[in-house]
Amino acid sequence: MNSYHMTPGQFREQGKKLIDWIADYYEEIEKYPVLSQIRPGDVFNKLPAKAPAEGESFDTMLTDVEQIIMPGITHWQHPGFFAYFPSNTSFPSILGDLLSSGLGVQGMIWATSPAATELETRVLDWLADMMALPADFRSAGKGGGVIQDTASSSALTAMVAAREKATFFVSNRKGVQGKLTAYVSSQTHSSLEKAAKIAGIGYENLRVVAVNENFAMDPEDLRRQISADRQSGNIPFFVCGTIGTTSSNAMDPLRKIGEICRHEDLWFHVDGAMSGTALVCPEFRYLADGMELADSFCFNPHKWMFTNFDCDCFWVADRKHLIHTFSILPEYLRNQATESGAVIDYRDWHIQLGRRFRSLKLWFVIRHYGSEGLRHHIRQHVAMAHEFAQWVQSRGEFELIMPPPLNLVCFRYRGSDEHNMQIMDNINQAGECYFTHTKLDGRIVLRLSVAQTGTESRHVDKLKKLLLAEIEKIRN
Amino acid sequence: MNSYHMTPGQFREQGKKLIDWIADYYEEIEKYPVLSQIRPGDVFNKLPAKAPAEGESFDTMLTDVEQIIMPGITHWQHPGFFAYFPSNTSFPSILGDLLSSGLGVQGMIWATSPAATELETRVLDWLADMMALPADFRSAGKGGGVIQDTASSSALTAMVAAREKATFFVSNRKGVQGKLTAYVSSQTHSSLEKAAKIAGIGYENLRVVAVNENFAMDPEDLRRQISADRQSGNIPFFVCGTIGTTSSNAMDPLRKIGEICRHEDLWFHVDGAMSGTALVCPEFRYLADGMELADSFCFNPHKWMFTNFDCDCFWVADRKHLIHTFSILPEYLRNQATESGAVIDYRDWHIQLGRRFRSLKLWFVIRHYGSEGLRHHIRQHVAMAHEFAQWVQSRGEFELIMPPPLNLVCFRYRGSDEHNMQIMDNINQAGECYFTHTKLDGRIVLRLSVAQTGTESRHVDKLKKLLLAEIEKIRN
Repeated sequence: MNSYHMTPGQFREQGKKLIDWIADYYEEIEKYPVLSQIRPGDVFNKLPAKAPAEGESFDTMLTDVEQIIMPGITHWQHPGFFAYFPSNTSFPSILGDLLSSGLGVQGMIWATSPAATELETRVLDWLADMMALPADFRSAGKGGGVIQDTASSSALTAMVAAREKATFFVSNRKGVQGKLTAYVSSQTHSSLEKAAKIAGIGYENLRVVAVNENFAMDPEDLRRQISADRQSGNIPFFVCGTIGTTSSNAMDPLRKIGEICRHEDLWFHVDGAMSGTALVCPEFRYLADGMELADSFCFNPHKWMFTNFDCDCFWVADRKHLIHTFSILPEYLRNQATESGAVIDYRDWHIQLGRRFRSLKLWFVIRHYGSEGLRHHIRQHVAMAHEFAQWVQSRGEFELIMPPPLNLVCFRYRGSDEHNMQIMDNINQAGECYFTHTKLDGRIVLRLSVAQTGTESRHVDKLKKLLLAEIEKIRN
Repeated sequence: MNSYHMTPGQFREQGKKLIDWIADYYEEIEKYPVLSQIRPGDVFNKLPAKAPAEGESFDTMLTDVEQIIMPGITHWQHPGFFAYFPSNTSFPSILGDLLSSGLGVQGMIWATSPAATELETRVLDWLADMMALPADFRSAGKGGGVIQDTASSSALTAMVAAREKATFFVSNRKGVQGKLTAYVSSQTHSSLEKAAKIAGIGYENLRVVAVNENFAMDPEDLRRQISADRQSGNIPFFVCGTIGTTSSNAMDPLRKIGEICRHEDLWFHVDGAMSGTALVCPEFRYLADGMELADSFCFNPHKWMFTNFDCDCFWVADRKHLIHTFSILPEYLRNQATESGAVIDYRDWHIQLGRRFRSLKLWFVIRHYGSEGLRHHIRQHVAMAHEFAQWVQSRGEFELIMPPPLNLVCFRYRGSDEHNMQIMDNINQAGECYFTHTKLDGRIVLRLSVAQTGTESRHVDKLKKLLLAEIEKIRN
């Protein structure tokens, strides 16, 4: 039969070319401006308005990648990337993901590719062990772990499971009937608000708990708000605490929040999207004190553990809540393994049905680095951030907003908000570094997030120099 | 600084080895049994209970892939894979996905990597053109397209946007207050029921509309049920029609359903997860007659368009409903491009915040094959399915349940349900082919889904021989 497929031989040739292209990219990445400098429409307008009728060569495509796509890339893997939260990766992860693409299997249920389910269960057990998570989070206990795409999906999954538990599964059946209230702090990630909307809770029923001077949730205010809601006839059902908020890396007091949740019978979700990675190091585990009171926890190896997007690890203390909430079994997916009850069908642990073999890349990363190798690099990032914070404190021009618990430093120039934004924009536009801002207590604050795979002290030192040069410009 | 990272040199070496490994896999794929033959726990128990403390070599990992993982793989890319719906892929797609892993960028908003947004917009416009979708679905119109992970997520996105439109955004604010009713047929994909649960609608408020003898939705029953709901004080808000249901590839009458939706002011979502691909061919576009009445449509290039999972294309006729429903703008994501209104921020078009650069693989696939190459292979799959259906009809042992509109054939042996299951299980366990069953009108029906990238007539012919041999066994 006539065929337009690329042959294995062509794949060998082009694949190896692309491997070299990627290796070259990392070797030369510092030649690119970190933040893309194009204007809206620049890429779109260079692409033809219609798809080609006849096939094109891979070489043409790779040339277009270089000429059209690359100028529109903001280089998240550049060692001068200090913006937002990281999304770091590593070569072993890229290879694991390539293998996943190559095998092209579906892990929606055990039967559709048993290895995809069983490797995922094992690797999530490994991580639970490496991070000293509570025994209930292991597959040998009542709970277990699953890979989700993002912490947003984990938050939604947790909130819906909590909603069902609180309504005795009536909301799944009859729909939400109002009155349910959930609790976050003003610093909780925006995905929780999005989840409250999607899950039919409503953002007005998402209570915003006060924070202390370090932007951590105030448990007394949480207790007060839950009590006020009960008195008004509302049904409190869910609290989200955070290990390392996005704005300022604030650490919520998990034990105190967890005790309130146990007492009040509320689902306690812990979001450790970036900072959860630090639990791999024993010296940072004090941040997770009280985790045994949590019903669910997530962190993202695709942020700070050298595993490329998407890879969010989500654990529950009791998997039956997920299965009761999300299980659906149409005839065309029925099979003996599922009916035996001896296997995990991960489709019942999240929103989607189809699922990629994502544990491969995580397995490759953990095995390549070993737990000691991972600890080494996490500690290096924290050390670089702390060194930068000390430098900020040693300079009269700057104010350190709070001592950084881990690898995110919040600071500001002792000038106006406009000055701070101008410093940031100028440095970002010059292209050697890229960092971003937030607002804390109504003021613009600059954020340095140190977590790129290739970041070394010299990259942080470069930023120091650029900051001083910008201040010099403002003063003159 | 001491480093545990894999070097670019090591990546070149191991990456090329892995490219060869994948090429070998496809060249030798027919040596594997399609359906994995392991028992629950076989993979899990071969993996160490704890992560290694020290790093391991890539060669060790690849050996474990071969010895531990491969026996637990069900080979979705095997040309004898006729099960479920396909999840086909191709070498250009694997390369596009590798490039995406290698660049490791985040496309959550335009500013975080403009090319990721703009390529996606362009490629979805290409597809809208290739499939003759309505003008409103193009980015130049009021709507536009976005890549989601799965059709499940698209269904949830559409249902929540519909819910907000119907409640004038009150449900996002105050939560769902009951009374909302949605409509599907008994053949609609289970993800719609899951979406109704997650979105706080409740599965009792998901009305199941009757189907005709070809399992297509009966528009008169839809009209009756909407009317009955209005009389009961309910608020009908959403209908899902399907191009090619999962069980039997039934085609809902989109125009009639769409006219009812317009008249009743309900959101009309069209799910073409697998069969939508056929719209690339002009001769199959009659299946989409009435699409201009739809508010949203999705299909999965990761099913039947040689693009590896995950890649679901989702279009809306009016993007403002998505943005009003899902938009969230925390300070730390504020930027000039977003505030100018001149760019698309895709985070507001779906559930998640973070997003992978998935348009690369789709771009590579479309450019490698060209629209004519894609048409050629889609037509080949349909032709093979039709040839098989004719064979079924020509044999007295079998019953063809209905003429296949595209590439899915539903048939049964003229014997008991147990006989049919036994035939299927025996063939699947032997390993040369893998196909699955469903239940239609209370009877077990066998399904042949012809859509694997490498499937040729000889693979379908092999299945014919195996079927006859099993029947021979039953008769003796």
